[in-house]
Amino acid sequence: MDYLIRDANQNDMKSVLGLIKELALFEREPNEVIITENQLINDGFTKDPKFKCFVAELKSEVVGIALLYPRYSTWKGQAMHLEDLIVTKKHRGKGIGFALFSKFIKYSHDLKVKRVQWVVLDWNVNAIDFYERNGAVVLDDWRVALMDDKAIKKFIENESI
Amino acid sequence: MDYLIRDANQNDMKSVLGLIKELALFEREPNEVIITENQLINDGFTKDPKFKCFVAELKSEVVGIALLYPRYSTWKGQAMHLEDLIVTKKHRGKGIGFALFSKFIKYSHDLKVKRVQWVVLDWNVNAIDFYERNGAVVLDDWRVALMDDKAIKKFIENESI
Repeated sequence: MDYLIRDANQNDMKSVLGLIKELALFEREPNEVIITENQLINDGFTKDPKFKCFVAELKSEVVGIALLYPRYSTWKGQAMHLEDLIVTKKHRGKGIGFALFSKFIKYSHDLKVKRVQWVVLDWNVNAIDFYERNGAVVLDDWRVALMDDKAIKKFIENESI
Repeated sequence: MDYLIRDANQNDMKSVLGLIKELALFEREPNEVIITENQLINDGFTKDPKFKCFVAELKSEVVGIALLYPRYSTWKGQAMHLEDLIVTKKHRGKGIGFALFSKFIKYSHDLKVKRVQWVVLDWNVNAIDFYERNGAVVLDDWRVALMDDKAIKKFIENESI
């Protein structure tokens, strides 16, 4: 299988957004994606980019992505976060996901980070198997907490009463 | 109670590290903290800081911190992560944690982020109650996955065989 892993460029962002939407559908949240192609371009290809993206290209088509950015651990120091690892359904099982994951790990290793991390849905057993086979630990006892823009606004409004 | 919430400076990092270690002990992982005061200074007070830190000062003593940094959501765009919210045991129950959390939310709101997030231990019911009361959602189905520096090194070595 003749695919290539390379840095994403601005022209890839349309395909990248398509893959983000494909994953959101798989994760049963298709309506949660409000980001646009332009926003991805503005955020990713500026002097101070908000993320780094690798793409897998197969026959001139972007069929997978790894999207990452730095984080900071107050236990370990600099860390790297894998926000999305996506391979389009049609091209799974060909090692493309592993190649993208491997690129992420090597990139992080080159930057000497002490930890790489990401999140995975507890019912996505294929993904969990894949990560554990490659040396990751999946923690049972941590929960993700979040507030969206509506909750943030409501908090601010209540505070200012 | 006459405390002050302010930006951290380099001189606070000794106290900040003390609070980080106090939290690690509470989280039953006291030996996992390998970061040093110097590293916190180098990472937080450079031209390109890796985190932002607010401290709660009470009678010239740092008794609490909120430590945060930007993240990126491929659904929403720019987001903010609360890595640590800590108040030393002796000074809990005085509203200091809420004041630090509120500072984090306001700071994020000013930057127009679409999401704030963090993680919490599933057995830390007091923290979960606090977050939910303030409008956060605690997700049940996401799991944190990670590889430490040893796992990263092992992956790289296996790959290069």
